[in-house]
Amino acid sequence: MNIRLDLQFDGTDLSGWQIQKDKPTVQGELKKALFAITGEEITPRGCGRTDAGVHARGYVCSFNSDTAISAEKLPYAVNANLPRDIVCTCASYAAPEFDAARSALGKRYRYTIDNSEFGNVFLSRYAWHYRFPLDIEAMRRAAVSFCGTHDFIGFAASGFSVKTTVRTINSLEIKKNGDIITADVTGNGFLYNMVRIIIGTLVYVGGGRISAADIPDIISSKCRSRAGITAPAKGLCLEEVFY
Amino acid sequence: MNIRLDLQFDGTDLSGWQIQKDKPTVQGELKKALFAITGEEITPRGCGRTDAGVHARGYVCSFNSDTAISAEKLPYAVNANLPRDIVCTCASYAAPEFDAARSALGKRYRYTIDNSEFGNVFLSRYAWHYRFPLDIEAMRRAAVSFCGTHDFIGFAASGFSVKTTVRTINSLEIKKNGDIITADVTGNGFLYNMVRIIIGTLVYVGGGRISAADIPDIISSKCRSRAGITAPAKGLCLEEVFY
Repeated sequence: MNIRLDLQFDGTDLSGWQIQKDKPTVQGELKKALFAITGEEITPRGCGRTDAGVHARGYVCSFNSDTAISAEKLPYAVNANLPRDIVCTCASYAAPEFDAARSALGKRYRYTIDNSEFGNVFLSRYAWHYRFPLDIEAMRRAAVSFCGTHDFIGFAASGFSVKTTVRTINSLEIKKNGDIITADVTGNGFLYNMVRIIIGTLVYVGGGRISAADIPDIISSKCRSRAGITAPAKGLCLEEVFY
Repeated sequence: MNIRLDLQFDGTDLSGWQIQKDKPTVQGELKKALFAITGEEITPRGCGRTDAGVHARGYVCSFNSDTAISAEKLPYAVNANLPRDIVCTCASYAAPEFDAARSALGKRYRYTIDNSEFGNVFLSRYAWHYRFPLDIEAMRRAAVSFCGTHDFIGFAASGFSVKTTVRTINSLEIKKNGDIITADVTGNGFLYNMVRIIIGTLVYVGGGRISAADIPDIISSKCRSRAGITAPAKGLCLEEVFY
């Protein structure tokens, strides 16, 4: 049977999704949990390779298994064998052709910035503490320029092989609630570190180092050095995968 | 000068407020930070002895110091010397007679229960994951009976010496937002573990093990064994101290 698992994880103490030797990863911990309950050597396929420190509220993975445990019971069995920073929220039977990575139509990420003076202690694992003033309206104007279909090669870290670096961003919405700034990004796919580099660039705009009006030029320059820094992993959370 | 510091802390990895040998505590970490920046051996006086694992959004302490650092600059200097789970949010000059403990008129605590099936991974440090059904209306009826002035000796853990066990609870409000249940308790003072035992008792009411109508009897019985369990420390947060 092809089984789909939905996961939440706090990435703070995890080295990302992909299995690694001697480092705790989501895929690695899940493989151990699945072996403990099924006796099968299962390497689940994830919806994407999240980086170390990145969180997820709606990560999706899939795998084949002959387990007799029903989908309804599976989360209880899996959770009993997972560390407390990974939780399975749902298990379901998927069509044989369903693949968490290849079947994904798009994703929604949220990036959180704690713009308070001293940093909220309860957000220290989940937000980038950036205490300097940010011009939210300028960031919103810049955000509009990222939407649409562009070659985002200038907003990608190296070290990843992909067929094309053209991606479509459907929406990039910036909200401010007290000292907390969130950016919700929806798109059909994202290059390696792309969301974090976009956020770093928006923070440069908010701080006046880059003009919002220059964003189209910076995108079309395809030049990584013209974009902003890579925002810290801990502010990023994969909220939802669309299928 | 008598100085007041306001603190936030994530109690997960701390052994409470009070200084202890070989264990990280808020008072201990703060004493080290104050020594690093002033060269003085300062033992700050806290507004109360919070337990290991309990959090604070508005903890207050006070101490005397001859430091030349202004109150405005002090939080920056202190924070540079504190671990990331403790943050000083404000420093101010206090009247000579101000004492964070003796001057306190009351406190507000929030207790958070995660009533979801599998537990929200982002609340695993900050909420009690209790997955069984809870009758919120029954809990609200029970909450009313805790308000007012009572001898709360039946809702105190042993191991603390106090002159009187009579306390006044001004309000105890229970809210539900999706799977998250919060209880906000305001009172003139609280006995050792009192909030956590009240919450444990409310959860017994919510689960049908104790009737809301029996709470006045349980309070007047002054009998610890008739109350509920002590709810886990991690769900508790000291929100505010009133002066």
